[in-house]
Amino acid sequence: MDKTFPSQQLATFAAQLQARDIPPHVLRKTEDLLVDWFGSAVAGKGARAVETIGTFIERMGPSTGPSEILYNRKRSTPYFAAMANAAASHVVEQDDVHNGSVFHPATVVFSPAVAVAQAMGASGQDLLVASIVGYEVGIRVGEFLGRSHYRIFHTTGTAGSIAAAAAVGRLLNLTPSQMLHAFGSAGTQAAGLWEFLRDAADSKQLHTAHAAGTGLMSAYLAKDGFTGAQQILEGKQGMAAGMSTDTDVTKLTDRLGSRWATVETSFKCHASCRHTHPAADALLQVMRDHHLTISDLKKVTTHVHQGAIDVLGPVVDPATVHQSKFSMGTVLSLAAKHGFAGLSEFDQDFKKPEITDLRDRVVMVLDDEVDAAYPNRWIGKVTVETNAGHVFAGRVDEPKGDPGNTLSRDEIEEKAMRIGVYSHGATRDELKQAIDALWHIESAQQVGALLP
Amino acid sequence: MDKTFPSQQLATFAAQLQARDIPPHVLRKTEDLLVDWFGSAVAGKGARAVETIGTFIERMGPSTGPSEILYNRKRSTPYFAAMANAAASHVVEQDDVHNGSVFHPATVVFSPAVAVAQAMGASGQDLLVASIVGYEVGIRVGEFLGRSHYRIFHTTGTAGSIAAAAAVGRLLNLTPSQMLHAFGSAGTQAAGLWEFLRDAADSKQLHTAHAAGTGLMSAYLAKDGFTGAQQILEGKQGMAAGMSTDTDVTKLTDRLGSRWATVETSFKCHASCRHTHPAADALLQVMRDHHLTISDLKKVTTHVHQGAIDVLGPVVDPATVHQSKFSMGTVLSLAAKHGFAGLSEFDQDFKKPEITDLRDRVVMVLDDEVDAAYPNRWIGKVTVETNAGHVFAGRVDEPKGDPGNTLSRDEIEEKAMRIGVYSHGATRDELKQAIDALWHIESAQQVGALLP
Repeated sequence: MDKTFPSQQLATFAAQLQARDIPPHVLRKTEDLLVDWFGSAVAGKGARAVETIGTFIERMGPSTGPSEILYNRKRSTPYFAAMANAAASHVVEQDDVHNGSVFHPATVVFSPAVAVAQAMGASGQDLLVASIVGYEVGIRVGEFLGRSHYRIFHTTGTAGSIAAAAAVGRLLNLTPSQMLHAFGSAGTQAAGLWEFLRDAADSKQLHTAHAAGTGLMSAYLAKDGFTGAQQILEGKQGMAAGMSTDTDVTKLTDRLGSRWATVETSFKCHASCRHTHPAADALLQVMRDHHLTISDLKKVTTHVHQGAIDVLGPVVDPATVHQSKFSMGTVLSLAAKHGFAGLSEFDQDFKKPEITDLRDRVVMVLDDEVDAAYPNRWIGKVTVETNAGHVFAGRVDEPKGDPGNTLSRDEIEEKAMRIGVYSHGATRDELKQAIDALWHIESAQQVGALLP
Repeated sequence: MDKTFPSQQLATFAAQLQARDIPPHVLRKTEDLLVDWFGSAVAGKGARAVETIGTFIERMGPSTGPSEILYNRKRSTPYFAAMANAAASHVVEQDDVHNGSVFHPATVVFSPAVAVAQAMGASGQDLLVASIVGYEVGIRVGEFLGRSHYRIFHTTGTAGSIAAAAAVGRLLNLTPSQMLHAFGSAGTQAAGLWEFLRDAADSKQLHTAHAAGTGLMSAYLAKDGFTGAQQILEGKQGMAAGMSTDTDVTKLTDRLGSRWATVETSFKCHASCRHTHPAADALLQVMRDHHLTISDLKKVTTHVHQGAIDVLGPVVDPATVHQSKFSMGTVLSLAAKHGFAGLSEFDQDFKKPEITDLRDRVVMVLDDEVDAAYPNRWIGKVTVETNAGHVFAGRVDEPKGDPGNTLSRDEIEEKAMRIGVYSHGATRDELKQAIDALWHIESAQQVGALLP
């Protein structure tokens, strides 16, 4: 087999990765990410966008099957369970993010991988290996597609199809050649546009469902001999050619097998778009250092990267809870009031005058240093003017949840239980029992139902 | 509702079109197109790419349901039947094409429309109206996306998602607002890249299945309140922004309700990429006029538009029957030998030395006149050098099957039966019985199974 082009090298890595090749800390981090994803998948319960996709799935698919839909405790075939869990695990904006690729791996990797592992009776170790394959591939594809891609396309939707194909393909034991075909089929279905943000539309959940479904389908098709383009990523009429102007092909194979992109993934504390987190943490630091409350704040200037302006800029008067998670002003105001912007804070307060008043006094300005560091580093910088006439500068180099400022297992578990219970997806006891089992997933002979 | 932007006007047209608004000749042409599509859908039987998608559908979906999969005589829910029929009806390269949009409407419109009509028990007239909605919308979206889009993207895949959403949305009686949401969901899932052509991969069937499935899903979701971007086509982070550099927004609403793009659609006689047809017909004209046989031909120069070079250029030594349908040399050689390049001619002869010898003596050169006329007119121009030392020029302004040189109902019926029987999808009697009913579909109270 010709290994001379990047897609081929990436597919070969994806097909051949073994547990013994993976350092223990990468496996442990993957368990952390799995637990974190599980909480988000359960927490999707009740969200209209998720439930509507669920209704379609029930109408079109079988109502029984080997795979678990976490938010509604139903079952289906892996295809539909993957779509449902992917829609659900992204909606509360608490799922993980990889900074350098601006890509949310968990929702598009674990959703199909768990569904297929359940259908196959795969081992817990196989699930972890396949998930790492999905992370390593998806992150590199996101980095490859670059900033110009992200300006228009939701990378989690596009790179997500390839990530899902990689994870499922590894579970199905695809050969390197089949894996490359799976990439071809996934890439030629890759989609997801940011236009929906302007209207607070439901598309973000559709993007993750679409990525999970098309990626899973591509892997199954490849197993059965269906062929795809060999160079769907870097070819002359492939994704780079059609959907990006600044791709960097070296990113696709960047230190495969030695750099573990999986462990670079960040957890989200605030239940909002990641682009708001650095500034929120910098504001909280200023408020702590100078003992300020929300009523002390006159104006907050956030010094941000262009990507934040592209994604958050259109959201000036958020109409829904989900859209308000893409409003820099709303997020900072909720953080200023509560010390944290979580699910209940958004639901209860996003339209309260106290919040919208400050929201409209939060501005974003492009900052050269922050923009140059992005996307490898997400620096938070704010300038805070107080009603008392003071001006304070705040800066956070690693927002909470980033690898250098990460969550402990206790914090991850607490977050998953908090959001799962809040959405009435499961009881605290059920979640605790499920999470206890997930911490030991590596030794499971077979991946069964996650919820009791 | 704000009707001032083009997507809204298009969605409103799609939601509100009534049978009484449609001239009779448009309804009759739609019946012609339906019969032509039916033949192609049956003729998909046995194609590996189609059967592999069928296997996935059987694994993931219910094996019973109200909707008919034509090539294998099975049933499923409308979602899966739409995908299966869309994969099947494009594979033999005999389905229709609209010149100006370079878009194959039938496969992405009738496949979901028939599946949903069967599930709903819709009337034949409703099916025709919904199909016309799909054609009118999809063609305009294809024209809007333009030539730069088609250079990288398979317009049938991308515009196809919107076309499928429009047709299904009309059957579901979406309001104008819901129809616009359906467009948003379909457009944000729109995908399909030409890269697969280089490798003779199976993606073309996946593109049509994907368009039919995502479009259908988008319409059902919209009916249940799922929202999409209002300006997925023309918005700043929509399809035009991400996937084209020469969109023309006036095309989206071009003479809605007075220009019937449906009747501009061409039938395909040769079982090959439409870009080969004008030259094939021009060659056949020269051969007829000068009484030539294949052994008289020394060299054939085809004078073509850039789109032909983009799509056919990568195919120099076709490895499969399907890829050979994208080889200008193969198509012209088969036409020269048989007077026609149909399914059996490709299957039996595409690798024979007599064909490959001439194939390698067929060249494409860009022609300014042909390129300027394209895509509204597909002019065929060839220069033929004979072994006897003569040089002849041939020209066809409307290749056979174009609206000005169309097929009679007898020819349409004969073509559908020929390809259906050839692929063993049904017997001649079964096809005849089905087609007889389709000619009277307008008066059917309910659309039932098409095949007896």
